[in-house]
Amino acid sequence: MTDRSRRKSINGHGDEQNEPISNTNLSNLENRRDNNYSNPLPAVRSRSFSEHSKDSINVQEPNETTSLLEGAREPSSHYSHFPSAREDDNAFSSSSRFRRHTWNPRQLKHLTAAFTEQIGRYKRRSGAYDEDKQAMLNEGGGIRVWYDDYTTIDWIHDYVKERVRIRKLHSIKGIRGWIVTSYDGLQGWVLVFLIGIVTACFAAGVDIAAEWGSDLKDGYCTESLRLNRNFCCANITNNGLDLNDDNKCDKWNSWSQAIRIHDESDAKLFDFFAYVVVALLFATGSALLVKYNSLYARPSSKSSARIENIEPKRKELKPYAAGSGIPEVKTILSGFVIRGFLGIRTLWIKAISLAMVVSAGMTLGKEGPFVHIACCIGNVLSRLFHKYNKNEGKRREILSASAAAGVSVAFAAPIGGVLFSLEEVSYYFPSKTLCRSFFCAIVAAVSLKLIDPFNTGKIVMFQVSYNKDWHVFEIVNFLILGVLGGLFGASLCKLILLYTKYIRNRTWLKQWPVVEVMMVVVITAAVNFGNKYTRMSNTELIFGLFSECTNEKEHDGLCDNSFNGMFEAFYLLGLALISKFLTCVITFGIRVPAGIFIPALLVGACFGRMLGIVMQYLTMTYPDFPIYSTVCNQNINGDCVIPGVYAMVGAAASLAGVTRSTVSLTVIMFELTGTLTYVLPIMTAIMISKWVADGIIKHGIYDLLIDLGGHPYLDSKTEYDGANTTFTTTLDLCQRDLEVIDVNDLNTIGELKNKLKKLSTSGYSDAGFPIVDNKILVGYIASTELEHALSLAHGSDNLTRCYFKDENVIDKSANFTAYVNQAPLTISKNASLEIVLELFKKLGLRYVIVVDRGQYVGVINKKRLLIYLRQITGKDMNNTL
Amino acid sequence: MTDRSRRKSINGHGDEQNEPISNTNLSNLENRRDNNYSNPLPAVRSRSFSEHSKDSINVQEPNETTSLLEGAREPSSHYSHFPSAREDDNAFSSSSRFRRHTWNPRQLKHLTAAFTEQIGRYKRRSGAYDEDKQAMLNEGGGIRVWYDDYTTIDWIHDYVKERVRIRKLHSIKGIRGWIVTSYDGLQGWVLVFLIGIVTACFAAGVDIAAEWGSDLKDGYCTESLRLNRNFCCANITNNGLDLNDDNKCDKWNSWSQAIRIHDESDAKLFDFFAYVVVALLFATGSALLVKYNSLYARPSSKSSARIENIEPKRKELKPYAAGSGIPEVKTILSGFVIRGFLGIRTLWIKAISLAMVVSAGMTLGKEGPFVHIACCIGNVLSRLFHKYNKNEGKRREILSASAAAGVSVAFAAPIGGVLFSLEEVSYYFPSKTLCRSFFCAIVAAVSLKLIDPFNTGKIVMFQVSYNKDWHVFEIVNFLILGVLGGLFGASLCKLILLYTKYIRNRTWLKQWPVVEVMMVVVITAAVNFGNKYTRMSNTELIFGLFSECTNEKEHDGLCDNSFNGMFEAFYLLGLALISKFLTCVITFGIRVPAGIFIPALLVGACFGRMLGIVMQYLTMTYPDFPIYSTVCNQNINGDCVIPGVYAMVGAAASLAGVTRSTVSLTVIMFELTGTLTYVLPIMTAIMISKWVADGIIKHGIYDLLIDLGGHPYLDSKTEYDGANTTFTTTLDLCQRDLEVIDVNDLNTIGELKNKLKKLSTSGYSDAGFPIVDNKILVGYIASTELEHALSLAHGSDNLTRCYFKDENVIDKSANFTAYVNQAPLTISKNASLEIVLELFKKLGLRYVIVVDRGQYVGVINKKRLLIYLRQITGKDMNNTL
Repeated sequence: MTDRSRRKSINGHGDEQNEPISNTNLSNLENRRDNNYSNPLPAVRSRSFSEHSKDSINVQEPNETTSLLEGAREPSSHYSHFPSAREDDNAFSSSSRFRRHTWNPRQLKHLTAAFTEQIGRYKRRSGAYDEDKQAMLNEGGGIRVWYDDYTTIDWIHDYVKERVRIRKLHSIKGIRGWIVTSYDGLQGWVLVFLIGIVTACFAAGVDIAAEWGSDLKDGYCTESLRLNRNFCCANITNNGLDLNDDNKCDKWNSWSQAIRIHDESDAKLFDFFAYVVVALLFATGSALLVKYNSLYARPSSKSSARIENIEPKRKELKPYAAGSGIPEVKTILSGFVIRGFLGIRTLWIKAISLAMVVSAGMTLGKEGPFVHIACCIGNVLSRLFHKYNKNEGKRREILSASAAAGVSVAFAAPIGGVLFSLEEVSYYFPSKTLCRSFFCAIVAAVSLKLIDPFNTGKIVMFQVSYNKDWHVFEIVNFLILGVLGGLFGASLCKLILLYTKYIRNRTWLKQWPVVEVMMVVVITAAVNFGNKYTRMSNTELIFGLFSECTNEKEHDGLCDNSFNGMFEAFYLLGLALISKFLTCVITFGIRVPAGIFIPALLVGACFGRMLGIVMQYLTMTYPDFPIYSTVCNQNINGDCVIPGVYAMVGAAASLAGVTRSTVSLTVIMFELTGTLTYVLPIMTAIMISKWVADGIIKHGIYDLLIDLGGHPYLDSKTEYDGANTTFTTTLDLCQRDLEVIDVNDLNTIGELKNKLKKLSTSGYSDAGFPIVDNKILVGYIASTELEHALSLAHGSDNLTRCYFKDENVIDKSANFTAYVNQAPLTISKNASLEIVLELFKKLGLRYVIVVDRGQYVGVINKKRLLIYLRQITGKDMNNTL
Repeated sequence: MTDRSRRKSINGHGDEQNEPISNTNLSNLENRRDNNYSNPLPAVRSRSFSEHSKDSINVQEPNETTSLLEGAREPSSHYSHFPSAREDDNAFSSSSRFRRHTWNPRQLKHLTAAFTEQIGRYKRRSGAYDEDKQAMLNEGGGIRVWYDDYTTIDWIHDYVKERVRIRKLHSIKGIRGWIVTSYDGLQGWVLVFLIGIVTACFAAGVDIAAEWGSDLKDGYCTESLRLNRNFCCANITNNGLDLNDDNKCDKWNSWSQAIRIHDESDAKLFDFFAYVVVALLFATGSALLVKYNSLYARPSSKSSARIENIEPKRKELKPYAAGSGIPEVKTILSGFVIRGFLGIRTLWIKAISLAMVVSAGMTLGKEGPFVHIACCIGNVLSRLFHKYNKNEGKRREILSASAAAGVSVAFAAPIGGVLFSLEEVSYYFPSKTLCRSFFCAIVAAVSLKLIDPFNTGKIVMFQVSYNKDWHVFEIVNFLILGVLGGLFGASLCKLILLYTKYIRNRTWLKQWPVVEVMMVVVITAAVNFGNKYTRMSNTELIFGLFSECTNEKEHDGLCDNSFNGMFEAFYLLGLALISKFLTCVITFGIRVPAGIFIPALLVGACFGRMLGIVMQYLTMTYPDFPIYSTVCNQNINGDCVIPGVYAMVGAAASLAGVTRSTVSLTVIMFELTGTLTYVLPIMTAIMISKWVADGIIKHGIYDLLIDLGGHPYLDSKTEYDGANTTFTTTLDLCQRDLEVIDVNDLNTIGELKNKLKKLSTSGYSDAGFPIVDNKILVGYIASTELEHALSLAHGSDNLTRCYFKDENVIDKSANFTAYVNQAPLTISKNASLEIVLELFKKLGLRYVIVVDRGQYVGVINKKRLLIYLRQITGKDMNNTL
């Protein structure tokens, strides 16, 4: 099950068979393939393979599912160090054996053997992507094979494919046509409905487990170890659960009570010890789970390890379940393929390890992981529907809706979720996706309300009930909160980045992620235990900070109106602010699931409440101060300002400083707190915070992490306005020295293979070849399609000629015309670079060909464009810091 | 002032002078122009012009600001009847005189005279659009002149222009560079800040005036006629204004009291009479104002009338201040130029006539007009900033933000406004625009709160304070409300469309818009007066329907719990529903400012409250019914269901059926009512309603009105999935018979003028000419640029040769290369039609050129594409109905 899922994940073509190319022109191809299946080649293949693996271990090993140049496409070599212009030469040092062998004639035999082998395996594994091949050929774009791992999808091709499919459906007449069309239209809705329900179930599971685990740090329920504190004590009262009444609950034992320590200081010490140990156990378990999973995240590792008995390379390990997941989800939604990242295994591992790590009480949240989990669910469930399973472009629409459901269940914020998906996560968000996301978010929220994991009957997390409007003089305070939020948010981003870059990645921490997690959790638990506020779970603390006071005993001293009480609260909140801020810096980025929303809210709520306490003190001590004396009526009731409001505004501002979202954040804050009274203060603070933070560090945390991860993300939302570039014209930018295929040349299989090899060593293995006819551009063939075509061509006779235009070809399998994009998008060499940029941003292109009066000039690949963009935005890591 | 503003409105180039083309190559052009200015030609021109106007009145008259083929570009001829493929021949019948003359050699002399004249005027009036000409030439797109009225802007050109401008700013070094760049970045924020404030002021003015006018229908304040009822009576109590306490207010006299009628039935009759008369006066005034303004909406009318003493043609009248304005704003935001639609005059007229017509108590709202007003403000204020004044693409970003401010002040819904602008109104909505819209909406809302036009201290319009959550059994009712909302909303759309098409446009009503308004207002006033609910203002009624009950006397019987009270309320609400629904059908589309939001909310609130009353009756009469007996606790308090909630959900559903918005509508409903408790019922009802309505009529009211108005709107959000088209390939779609310019031909001025004339008669006067070099495509020149270049060419010697490539040209003014787009976007003839569609939708193209291996094949203009889209969507009016 998991094996299969791993292979199928993100574009799920693992167990696809080669499908017949139904064009009559191509019937020979089909026969050829069928022959392959009926002859006893498999045995031969496996023999030659094992031979090969024994005596040529230096040669790049093929893997089960990916294509023959996989080695050069390893993420560790390709994308995690993005090759800048000057780095091109050694960008592939980590897997450059392949290239070395290309230039070593002695090893050429081995290489060819590996090549042949690979083609055999390729044929078995990788089917063509397009099913209705004749229709796709009519559209001029050529047919395609499945996208490779770590490549960009072709949005336009997928769009055309979907339109062709729909046209075919619409061409069915009568009642059957109506049924087929209606069913087709319904699929998307059914799918997002299922995603909503399943996401709610996962969220409820994680919530329940995390609450139980959190309480386990303090003690256990004597009635049943399976009950958390609330349920344990709720059996007595059977109504509203007051979180602060744990003293009155007999069934709940602290760990010191369990081993009957009666001395108070000893008991406290033991409780501390137990607290840390339980937290450590949870966090270590989580980290091990993530690490264990990362061993198998890339199918190549396991299969090569099993077959060849060699160690899986450490570089290939990708702990997909770790971190927030939002940067990768953003990259995937922008059209990138990261196989396994949204698979079933990642889903389970992420959910379980998230529950554990939240139980450990670390300074992290679950909203990012929930988005990741929801997208996994979306990806897995979309396999049920052919329409989405076979179209990567359409599938991403579903993933956008899933992301909305993720936020919807994380914060009980359905509308906020839709807007977050729209504003922050998604790349291509058509109107239909908006409706589907909306529906998906409703279903998820309703399901969660019905499941009711917290047994409160409410889905609003931090329900407040402020009954007073704000006063005009407070606007100054809200502006201050905005500025503070910007400062804290931006410095959080900056420190996380610096810490990751200079400490985590450059010291021994990099090699020992689990030890790092253990260290962080011990530090966090130790720091948290000493302060009554930080000792609560993060959500309890936020709820307390947001709350208004009805009597002085409430919320652990936050409502104490005496000077001493206020001073103590202020002091402890200051400590909490510092400790949460610093532990967040060292926590975010460790190899466990970790979101940034809750820490950012915490930090903001702390400084917000601190300012609120100060204001409360001032209005109480100096009720005659002219600015507020009239509006506060000399503060007779002592409640002229509500400190909880300041905490809420501060939290919103801090979060805005971290993520730079605006609209979605405002709506999320409303839905989190269930109040709309403070719409204008919150909006104002968010806007100010965003400005301040933008002044300190230009990008939000997710964009910074995308850069740090080296993902090839082309931001369609940023306006690029810099001017520091070495490229000034389209002609400068395009690569004119790439290999081309001339239809008039004698394009033998051997030559084409050579061209493919050269391409892979040049760092553009996911690109392709322009096809020219006496310098005039006539088409384009991508390397994957060429590989596929070569794999289907008769034998591997390197001297067989292949054709790229429909001539009188005798051997039909050597006619590659079907794979040629007959209408590649071109641009004149005189065109402005801005037009090139717009084309890539808006159409999601992979390449554009530069022509001069029809004659081929060069190619601009997406990778090349990204190098250019890094120059003009100064988004290079060195510049960002 | 108004004269000037009219000319400058929407692209505001009225008093631009020709600006020197700073290229050294083009210095001759400049000299040439200077010569023109210094020689005594004006006198000659005006003489020849008046001669001409006397003896050749049949020839199409030029107008002051637009170009020489204006006649063929009249909106009435061009766009209001969109030329379908088969209509091409007589599409210009209303202004085909120009074409007739082309083929009449006898009149050719007159024509040439008119032509010469036109060119002289053109030179004086229309400057080149691009300022930094050398930089734009370097970008390969050629330089441009201002966009004509009723043409599409070139998004890509404007984008490139902005980037060039920014690059230039960034190239300034040192402290000056920092200041200049910062100031440039600040401009947008300052501008939206101003827009927010001014919009709030206008909104407050309209609100105050409308409230005063509304009250005037019932009576007047004896203290001062300037006071409305609330302020008149508020002087007594000086606190909360209870709208139902008018009996206790001595200073307020009904009209019957004013003339001392003491007999009660007589008084009632007289009050009715006064009510109708006042309403009639307001509405007629409003209609006359709109009509009066429409006389001068198009500058051509006034100027030609003044100069030539001829009647302005009735066909040209466009009552820009009438209607909702949202369809036109959508069209403008999608890149269309409608001059005068967003000018200062439209702004004032719309604001004043809106206040009057709302006072008249007609079944219409002010949200659409407020969006229009806000966009006028945005357009007018953006003239203050060069960056936006000189770039139509950038200006549209500001207009998007303005639209958000419009909704923000109309409903006190800042976030809803941003989302409405995003979801419903805007076309191109980059991330920066989102932030700006957000800021603009905040500023507008805060300003309105500070102005406080209703003297309530709140900006929430229909503040409710429900204190109970919903029960699970109610979900069925909410689903019913969703279905009802979809039915009512969609039938409202359909009936409005049918009424407009078959009654208003085909009977005498079309010729007598003011009479129609008078009829409608009399009907509305008469119907409204008889029912205590409809007699209230629309917003008062909605507020009453949304409200919860605290005692039985509240809200004019809506809270009466007795059977008779309930029955009466149910019966009267039923009548109100019918009357509001029907009057909305005959009202929407008359020639006064009129929005659809409030009527739709009204209808929904009526049937919602009716269902609520039924539920209340059931739960009270049969408290033991198993479905709700337990959750309602046998309905001991009689408040198991809140009818107000049903009204709110019904209103949301009805509005969703009309507009088909989802997310923005949900948020607007929250902000309107200030409650978040019912997020899930509202969302569910909206989703159901949208589905039901989509099943009945495919498009929302705004899209239907865009179609009805014949605006060339290319919907970037709809997914086109139909298959009924006569075009199956790109080759079918492109026009291959268009005139081209071969650089090797002897392109004399006379020939080029002839080509322009042919283009204008072919129905593509806003298109242009591909430029080829021995069949190879080398560029494209739009007709406006060609006209401009011709106007600057030496004399009007028809035999002078013009050049389109940089050769050794002696007369530099005959070198048109600067105006040629050297890098037009091309597409292969093999390309899929879907790719063509994507290019137009995503890049906002005006044309794309089809090539085959570099050779010119044909052109696909936007207009041609729209014909195609109408075919595949079946969006033809006949199919829609």
